Amino acid sequence: MFRCEAYAAPAHDKPLASLTIDRRDVTPEDVQIDILYCGVCHSDLHMARNEWGFSSYPVVPGHEIVGRVSKVGAAVTKFKEGDLVGVGCMVDSCRTCSNCQEGLEQYCEVGNIQTYGSPDKHLGGTTHGGYSKSIVVYEGFVLRISDKLDLAATAPLLCAGITTWSPLRHWKVGPGQKVGIVGLGGLGHMGVKFAHALGAHVVLFTTSASKVEDAKRLGANEVVISKNADEMAAHAQSFDFILDCVSAEHDMNAYLELLKRDGTLCLVGAPEKPMSVHAFPLLMARRRLAGSGIGGIAETQEMLDFCAEHGITSDVEVIDIKDINAAYERMLKSDVKYRFTIDMNSL
Amino acid sequence: MFRCEAYAAPAHDKPLASLTIDRRDVTPEDVQIDILYCGVCHSDLHMARNEWGFSSYPVVPGHEIVGRVSKVGAAVTKFKEGDLVGVGCMVDSCRTCSNCQEGLEQYCEVGNIQTYGSPDKHLGGTTHGGYSKSIVVYEGFVLRISDKLDLAATAPLLCAGITTWSPLRHWKVGPGQKVGIVGLGGLGHMGVKFAHALGAHVVLFTTSASKVEDAKRLGANEVVISKNADEMAAHAQSFDFILDCVSAEHDMNAYLELLKRDGTLCLVGAPEKPMSVHAFPLLMARRRLAGSGIGGIAETQEMLDFCAEHGITSDVEVIDIKDINAAYERMLKSDVKYRFTIDMNSL
Repeated sequence: MFRCEAYAAPAHDKPLASLTIDRRDVTPEDVQIDILYCGVCHSDLHMARNEWGFSSYPVVPGHEIVGRVSKVGAAVTKFKEGDLVGVGCMVDSCRTCSNCQEGLEQYCEVGNIQTYGSPDKHLGGTTHGGYSKSIVVYEGFVLRISDKLDLAATAPLLCAGITTWSPLRHWKVGPGQKVGIVGLGGLGHMGVKFAHALGAHVVLFTTSASKVEDAKRLGANEVVISKNADEMAAHAQSFDFILDCVSAEHDMNAYLELLKRDGTLCLVGAPEKPMSVHAFPLLMARRRLAGSGIGGIAETQEMLDFCAEHGITSDVEVIDIKDINAAYERMLKSDVKYRFTIDMNSL
Repeated sequence: MFRCEAYAAPAHDKPLASLTIDRRDVTPEDVQIDILYCGVCHSDLHMARNEWGFSSYPVVPGHEIVGRVSKVGAAVTKFKEGDLVGVGCMVDSCRTCSNCQEGLEQYCEVGNIQTYGSPDKHLGGTTHGGYSKSIVVYEGFVLRISDKLDLAATAPLLCAGITTWSPLRHWKVGPGQKVGIVGLGGLGHMGVKFAHALGAHVVLFTTSASKVEDAKRLGANEVVISKNADEMAAHAQSFDFILDCVSAEHDMNAYLELLKRDGTLCLVGAPEKPMSVHAFPLLMARRRLAGSGIGGIAETQEMLDFCAEHGITSDVEVIDIKDINAAYERMLKSDVKYRFTIDMNSL
């Protein structure tokens, strides 16, 4: 066990502040990582403020981690000291259920171990995330990172990236398809980049006319202002797939109507309140409303390799750790293009 | 044009009564049918009482039609006088859109012509359904009926049958799968029979303990009283597919939780009010909420042929046409096992 500098929320109504935490010494299968950058996800804020009701304090957030291996356990085969690596939303799972066996650890039937806020089977208490100097993770949940990519801009791929990549791949988005992305934030801007890189005709839906140019720069072929009913109606029954990246309350039914027969509207944002869904748009064209959660380890590696090959990263604003509380406030106002990343040298 | 005896709702608040209507003479591609039996669907009541708001009076309901060919047009190739035939919910479509070309006329992009209540391109006014002595239909929307089956009990296959068959086939229900059917009414009892005949392990969900024995007789391997939270919880994450046959307002989320990863809850009933759907059950296991509407002509024929081969029909109570208004009242109380069929000789 060793001491490690971190940044933590001490209570739901207190700002994040410096804290020293314990990390376990590497076991034979562990990788110890010096953290270089950690992306800032909206989940970090939800957990820091106990907005989902199950936070256990102190909360050390952060699950978009990029770093360099500083030590490996005796049985580690995939990594060596000095390797660039990443850690996303999970640090372990049951490894044996059928979903884990299929490489879909995010749907572990027992429940995977989240990077922060899950029971820590090694040290007791809860797991602590990437707002810290280092982390120790079972090698099966560590990802290889290419040195071709900007590391600060790579960090958000570990959550915002895989969360949008996984459904786009699962529903086989590609050339010849018309694909919608709803919302241009941390998730949505990755959705646009990926759907474009996968060869689809990409339409970005936004409530904000100020985002049109930026959406096109990121890869959208068309931008629809979703408040404009005529613009929406012009796209009726024309989409193969729509990825809904908005967590705020909004009308799903308007998007269901835009799907072709057998089309899927997939949620990756999770509105707090139940959604009001009409049966008729589903019945009339055998449409589907689906959801998708992050992605498995194998497909996260696939996504990172694809990004290295295609030069894809997140658009980030790099901040010092001392500015994290201000960054949370700006995130609440969507005042970031499109993801904050913490430079961990600032800790 | 010829005169034809029928039974019609003259207004939304008036009982159905005898009425003479016009039928067109057969065009070269038409089949004229003497109607023997017509099933009674809940849609008949909705339309007779203008509960969907677009009824045009008089309304002659009926889209579960079994009869015998009395005349064919000069160009008709599929049928001859004396053949046993059926007509379901549609009598025509655009025939040219991609959905029609794929044999999925129920999703015709232009909008198919419903058996009753749609614009009648031959005579003007609206189409009139099967509560009548005869009907004239384009041969492309006429189905072959085997003489092996009880004809009164075959009529409901044309709507209740295909509406449940189509999604069970589309989602490839078969041996090795655990399949749920929600609700044991006109649709649900066909869902149980089909899912059982297709080789699945069938679980029927009902609010009514009195239906347990009957559900097992119809082919359910297990029956769950959906009001019992413990019984429901015992089936968490275990279903490949659930077919929801309930139109009344009910909690979808309880069923979403019962699906395995990538499982689908498919609606065939259409609740009037929007449904309240939680995002988490979708996100946590990549589940789908879908809808399905009736079925195409080719798959309706496939279903009828399957029924002839496996001796499957609907459980019916045969009534005289004069009892239709009383039957509607009983249908509202679910006081029928499981479908009324009108003996058209009584007209």
